[in-house]
Amino acid sequence: MRRRFLRTLPALALAAGTPWSFGAAAAARVERWGLCELAFAGPEDGNPFVDVTLSATFRQGGQVVRVDGFYDGAGRYLVRFMPGSAGTWDYETRSNVAALDARHGRIDVLPAGPGNHGPVRVRNRFHFGYEDGTPYRQVGTTCYAWTHQKEELQQRTLRTLAGAPFNKLRMCVFPKWYDYNRDEPPLYPFEGRRGAWDFSRFNPAFFRNLERRVAALRDLGIEADIILFHPYDKGHWGFDRMPQDVNHRYLRYVVARLAAYRNVWWSLANEYDFVEGRGEDEWDSLFRTVQAADPYDHLRSIHNAFRMYNHTKPWVTHASIQHGNATADFERAVLYRDAYEKPVVFDEVKYEGDFPKRWGHLSAEEMVLRFWQGAIAGSYVGHSETYLDPNEIVWWSRGGTLKGGSPPRLALFRRILEDGPPEGLEPIDKWQDHPFAGKHGQYYLGYFGTAAPTTWPFVLFKTALADGMRFRADVIDTWNMTVTPLANTFEITKRDDYTYADKDGRAIALPGRPYMAIRIVRLA
Amino acid sequence: MRRRFLRTLPALALAAGTPWSFGAAAAARVERWGLCELAFAGPEDGNPFVDVTLSATFRQGGQVVRVDGFYDGAGRYLVRFMPGSAGTWDYETRSNVAALDARHGRIDVLPAGPGNHGPVRVRNRFHFGYEDGTPYRQVGTTCYAWTHQKEELQQRTLRTLAGAPFNKLRMCVFPKWYDYNRDEPPLYPFEGRRGAWDFSRFNPAFFRNLERRVAALRDLGIEADIILFHPYDKGHWGFDRMPQDVNHRYLRYVVARLAAYRNVWWSLANEYDFVEGRGEDEWDSLFRTVQAADPYDHLRSIHNAFRMYNHTKPWVTHASIQHGNATADFERAVLYRDAYEKPVVFDEVKYEGDFPKRWGHLSAEEMVLRFWQGAIAGSYVGHSETYLDPNEIVWWSRGGTLKGGSPPRLALFRRILEDGPPEGLEPIDKWQDHPFAGKHGQYYLGYFGTAAPTTWPFVLFKTALADGMRFRADVIDTWNMTVTPLANTFEITKRDDYTYADKDGRAIALPGRPYMAIRIVRLA
Repeated sequence: MRRRFLRTLPALALAAGTPWSFGAAAAARVERWGLCELAFAGPEDGNPFVDVTLSATFRQGGQVVRVDGFYDGAGRYLVRFMPGSAGTWDYETRSNVAALDARHGRIDVLPAGPGNHGPVRVRNRFHFGYEDGTPYRQVGTTCYAWTHQKEELQQRTLRTLAGAPFNKLRMCVFPKWYDYNRDEPPLYPFEGRRGAWDFSRFNPAFFRNLERRVAALRDLGIEADIILFHPYDKGHWGFDRMPQDVNHRYLRYVVARLAAYRNVWWSLANEYDFVEGRGEDEWDSLFRTVQAADPYDHLRSIHNAFRMYNHTKPWVTHASIQHGNATADFERAVLYRDAYEKPVVFDEVKYEGDFPKRWGHLSAEEMVLRFWQGAIAGSYVGHSETYLDPNEIVWWSRGGTLKGGSPPRLALFRRILEDGPPEGLEPIDKWQDHPFAGKHGQYYLGYFGTAAPTTWPFVLFKTALADGMRFRADVIDTWNMTVTPLANTFEITKRDDYTYADKDGRAIALPGRPYMAIRIVRLA
Repeated sequence: MRRRFLRTLPALALAAGTPWSFGAAAAARVERWGLCELAFAGPEDGNPFVDVTLSATFRQGGQVVRVDGFYDGAGRYLVRFMPGSAGTWDYETRSNVAALDARHGRIDVLPAGPGNHGPVRVRNRFHFGYEDGTPYRQVGTTCYAWTHQKEELQQRTLRTLAGAPFNKLRMCVFPKWYDYNRDEPPLYPFEGRRGAWDFSRFNPAFFRNLERRVAALRDLGIEADIILFHPYDKGHWGFDRMPQDVNHRYLRYVVARLAAYRNVWWSLANEYDFVEGRGEDEWDSLFRTVQAADPYDHLRSIHNAFRMYNHTKPWVTHASIQHGNATADFERAVLYRDAYEKPVVFDEVKYEGDFPKRWGHLSAEEMVLRFWQGAIAGSYVGHSETYLDPNEIVWWSRGGTLKGGSPPRLALFRRILEDGPPEGLEPIDKWQDHPFAGKHGQYYLGYFGTAAPTTWPFVLFKTALADGMRFRADVIDTWNMTVTPLANTFEITKRDDYTYADKDGRAIALPGRPYMAIRIVRLA
């Protein structure tokens, strides 16, 4: 047995936080939700990308996980696996090539290390949480083409992200050809050249760079919302108009390479309805390919321009929405929750910046307001930045450094969300222009937007309240970044059919400035 | 042949605009989209409602329409048919009772008479039109329980409707047990009595009254939005908690009786999510029963309380929505169009009145505003009235007379909609807080709500515009009901990336009052 084990022993790369390493020692171990990589030598002749099939089945007790392998070039075949539980897993491969078939072995999986909470899942219908139960409060940003820039700029983007408040980044697999980014990228996803791609042969170097970046984001605690298609090509390279069979093969290849990274989300497209000549049926079919190929069921959505995708479809885990003004008003934003009954992420709400286009010149104040309004609606928001730059290095496209005023305010915003109820913020009195979200009877977060009240009467909507309950409160200046606890507490009594109020009729004084919030927390 | 024809000749009732008449002469004719009724004598023993099956197939050339008949009591069996085209139709019955089986004959269908435009259909994705092509602009109201009142009050309601601006009425089949309406109705839908219903035997007299009212609405040009289930019973009669097989039989019976009335819409429920113990799967199943039973494919929807039904499902023709504040802002209202991609009818937006409940005390101004905001969003709105009354005769429930301030303003509103583009009003610059709807390049209707501008710069969104186009304009005071044509015309020139403006930079003067609108129409 031992001999046979050694004979079939593949190179085993452990990748909790490190990139894969070919030919690593067999003694290596991986942590739960880490990246385990098996490397095998196989044929180089023909076209291994299409000629060779490879998969592996991982087993632990009754758990069975089947994952696809992929060709990584130079006769090297990889199988990546994200173990969902600690302990020993056995595996066995299947291939149409004898050298890759029926190879088996065992991996030892350690408990998750610090900062590793597993992949993000939908929780409480409208919210998210890591698989280990830790809440996840999405505060996103977007750098569409950051992995297609020079190495130094990619590094700069990572340094910026390390100090920024964002825990999700939207980014394209394919390079982008659009205003402010008309450069050829260092690497392409296929062999060949512009006008003469070989869509049947992937370029492993391109994907290795992408993976390196996904891993770096993971190590920063940032989810990578991988945009699988986009229209910002218009035939320049033609990655927006490949034959449908190529699209499906491309998806299977990307999923085989990336699904074992726990911080991956799948965004089928950016502005899917701007991709020419692809009907909703075809998008459905691409969704199903991703769903079928991904053994870990990472989050899946698709981002619109003018026409919403039907996010009630079963393969959509959450609604990823572009809308320039829904988050200007929590009573607009909440409507999508009601329609889709899934988490709503407003991934594009216009951008902070000074572009001449109306989608790219929000003030920092307006950007921050959108995050707050989105939260009061029980939804989530995405940031990006479009400030003109002499070198055309704009965060929204290339990454680099942040120039805007919103990130520090979003850091406070995120902290307040993360200090809130673990279930996520729910609208307190839906459809009544009531600017509070929270958890009935326990926690209330109110936001007054551009209104500049000087007082707020202490009145709460009735659900889960009773006479005699006591609360403390903080006044939050979301723009000037102050949180001021009030010295006095409040005791409530029933006021009318709908509300309870402080028994002495007291109010909370406010400074008459915009962008104020109030946090009210029940005392034990 | 002639002899056989006479032998099988049933009583043929013609009902273009008149109620059915049993035993009418065979010579009678029906008009297109009129109601043709065949009456047959059959068994009275046993339980004809469940023992006897009866259907008829109507044929004209390649058209085949199969309709279910029903038992009307006293040994009388009826088959109703709404012919979709003029000319001769042949029919033949099928039954498990010999006396009702294989009876056949012929009907002559005349062209539609004046005011008969056929049933209402979805048109242009988000709008409605009659089957003959005439646009239909929904201006609805609601009297939930009007058919359950004394005869005199039902007549009074009809007289009120004859002078009111509404072209759709929401009304329940089942009686209502709720505040301001705790009376027993004159008739019940089933045999038996409270606590001892025989759910297997319908009460034909109950349904004959209902039909008489549906026909009366038809003759007033009003669509009857028939609410098939509702929660305002809470077990008082128990029609909200019948076994699911009874629910399905009830639906088939209602559809067999009513579907041939061209002005019928099916509303599966009012506040469906308040009906206890019935899951969304069961609602789906009830929808499918109505869809399968109705040979004319009348409009189908369902009305919510707090939880939206998934209106993307294929059996839903339009979204029927209760929402207390979406229509306070056209940018809220439009979101449902984007989510559902179907016509959106806000059937309940709170009510004009002085009820102590927050859902029943809109001012007349607020009610009218909701219709206008809904229209600017490319959607439709429903009215009702909840003014306290010494006799508890409240329009919203019992009908009677209208007391509020909104109806005359809604008459103007309806006229303006009907004078608009036949395709229906579409948002001109979606998601940009642009308060105009219409048809690009041809027609623009702007509404300023509670804002009270003193001027409006003549600037139009670019789509379909070109330098040199000329327009005329009207200033509309939607509350004071004036339409003021402007003497001068406007000629446009490109202003920027997004807009065209009057070439001389002119603006339209406005009176600084709220509820103003502007109508701009292209000159040939």
